[in-house]
Amino acid sequence: MPTIILNQKAILKLLDMAEVIGVVEAAFKDWAEGRGTMPPKAYLLLEKGDFRAMPASLPGAAGVKWVAVHPQNPGRGLPTVMGTIIYNDPQNGYPLAIMDGTDITAYRTGAAAAIASKYLARPDARTLGIIGAGRQAHTQIQAHLPLFNIKQVKVFDTHKEATVRLIKAFPEYPLRESTLEETAAADIVCTLTPSREPYLKKEWIAPGTHINAIGADAEGKEELEPALLKRAMVVVDDIRQASVAGEINVPVAKKLFSVDEVYANLGEIIAGKKRGRTDPKAITIFDSTGVAIEDIAVTKIIYEKALKNGNFMTINMIGTAP
Amino acid sequence: MPTIILNQKAILKLLDMAEVIGVVEAAFKDWAEGRGTMPPKAYLLLEKGDFRAMPASLPGAAGVKWVAVHPQNPGRGLPTVMGTIIYNDPQNGYPLAIMDGTDITAYRTGAAAAIASKYLARPDARTLGIIGAGRQAHTQIQAHLPLFNIKQVKVFDTHKEATVRLIKAFPEYPLRESTLEETAAADIVCTLTPSREPYLKKEWIAPGTHINAIGADAEGKEELEPALLKRAMVVVDDIRQASVAGEINVPVAKKLFSVDEVYANLGEIIAGKKRGRTDPKAITIFDSTGVAIEDIAVTKIIYEKALKNGNFMTINMIGTAP
Repeated sequence: MPTIILNQKAILKLLDMAEVIGVVEAAFKDWAEGRGTMPPKAYLLLEKGDFRAMPASLPGAAGVKWVAVHPQNPGRGLPTVMGTIIYNDPQNGYPLAIMDGTDITAYRTGAAAAIASKYLARPDARTLGIIGAGRQAHTQIQAHLPLFNIKQVKVFDTHKEATVRLIKAFPEYPLRESTLEETAAADIVCTLTPSREPYLKKEWIAPGTHINAIGADAEGKEELEPALLKRAMVVVDDIRQASVAGEINVPVAKKLFSVDEVYANLGEIIAGKKRGRTDPKAITIFDSTGVAIEDIAVTKIIYEKALKNGNFMTINMIGTAP
Repeated sequence: MPTIILNQKAILKLLDMAEVIGVVEAAFKDWAEGRGTMPPKAYLLLEKGDFRAMPASLPGAAGVKWVAVHPQNPGRGLPTVMGTIIYNDPQNGYPLAIMDGTDITAYRTGAAAAIASKYLARPDARTLGIIGAGRQAHTQIQAHLPLFNIKQVKVFDTHKEATVRLIKAFPEYPLRESTLEETAAADIVCTLTPSREPYLKKEWIAPGTHINAIGADAEGKEELEPALLKRAMVVVDDIRQASVAGEINVPVAKKLFSVDEVYANLGEIIAGKKRGRTDPKAITIFDSTGVAIEDIAVTKIIYEKALKNGNFMTINMIGTAP
């Protein structure tokens, strides 16, 4: 039986942000309503980096993303984060496809934040703040701009070249270099740095702001002052992951914030079990750690598009017949 | 950068049981001496079957085996157990190879049992008993016969056709159909069934026997009378896995056997931290659940042989250059 192999190049041709937003939103709803399965990640921690196995299932889909995180990679010409996805038929377990997971990860992360903004930001948001102008900034902008009537994207990065590069990459969009404080004053703020010290101050954040806290995805990482969490309506993608590896992990460990103070997970809001923003003056925060349910939803649509498209490499993985 | 893709057919050409025994034994030693890492398996439990992510590292090697177990598959022309392995460079995380894991699993399981027999069976063992004549029986025979001076292999299966098929597959070896009780009277006994009721009676097992208990690999499975465990020197591959999914899992759950009664894990014996058999009259039991360390060791040698051999399919998984 043939297994489809899709590399990064093939996948980039099949990724469409509007579609990704659609399937990721549906996946959160399926999961919240009991039609998805996601066991905790399994971590393999080594000297030079770590690996994470992220299994999940959705109706008609099952698989695992195997992610490598190696912080010294950029100096070697390789991405810090690389993922490989095995996609299986849940009925018989056959490996239907093996895909590079690098861009699927970037797209689904952008999509999840934009979905959170849809439910939590003010619908009349006009400015987007991007803190950290690296890889994730691209998909955050791609995901947010079609959903809101954004008049200006403010960009801050401690490396000026990164900001310049990002602005050049979106000549059609209203990007502008800003100070950290100006960027924090946007209607929707996306924090995308690997910081281990909170740098986003409560005093900079106006009532009515929505923040997508994306950067913290491992123990010890944090971007927001804990006082900001206390003042806000906090929504997570997965409470198990967020409490040990998300934006809330350090404040929870220091007992400055309790998991009981989390308002909801995103799936509950999408499924209508809890309400999104009701108060235009509220500060809302989405703590995104990245969940395997998102990956499997995007993998499924990429697999289906590849089948229709017909232009792919296959190999008979199992079965010894020629 | 190219990723090597090896399907079942390519891997079968590269598998050599003597080599597999060598690298699996070294892997257990590495692991026991702190040079290997193996986090617990992550289980994805679905309606028609389940999936397991099995990550591990050894010096110079890292990866994950993603295994699907679907009991209804044989009726559909697919194996019950299928695995796909992603093999990475531990220094930078790059996916060096993607391989079918079906035969790697079968070979490493046979190898681990034969290694256990080497340390736990009497060196003058002359008879091998095979209970369950399915797929696993082949690799048990392949692994054991070169290590011992076996004069007779007794085979029992409740399906006579399976026994006949197995005997035909080894025309060069002294296989003979036997009753269950006769097979249990062999010097080395391998239990290879998916039984959920203990069928191997203590009264059939002579002093000095070594048993490789392979069949029980999930909660609720058991092949040996608990009284036999009580009477024996029990060695496991991994105490965490064995206590929840190995031969001892049901007796442990029923409080008929305690994990404290386990004598050692196989790695400790290979590393010389504990002694193997010292008493010719002892009954020894190896409780094999199958560990990811074994898989990664075999994957490494297959990868290295494939590179030398030069005959493989590659794809540039990551990197968008043509």
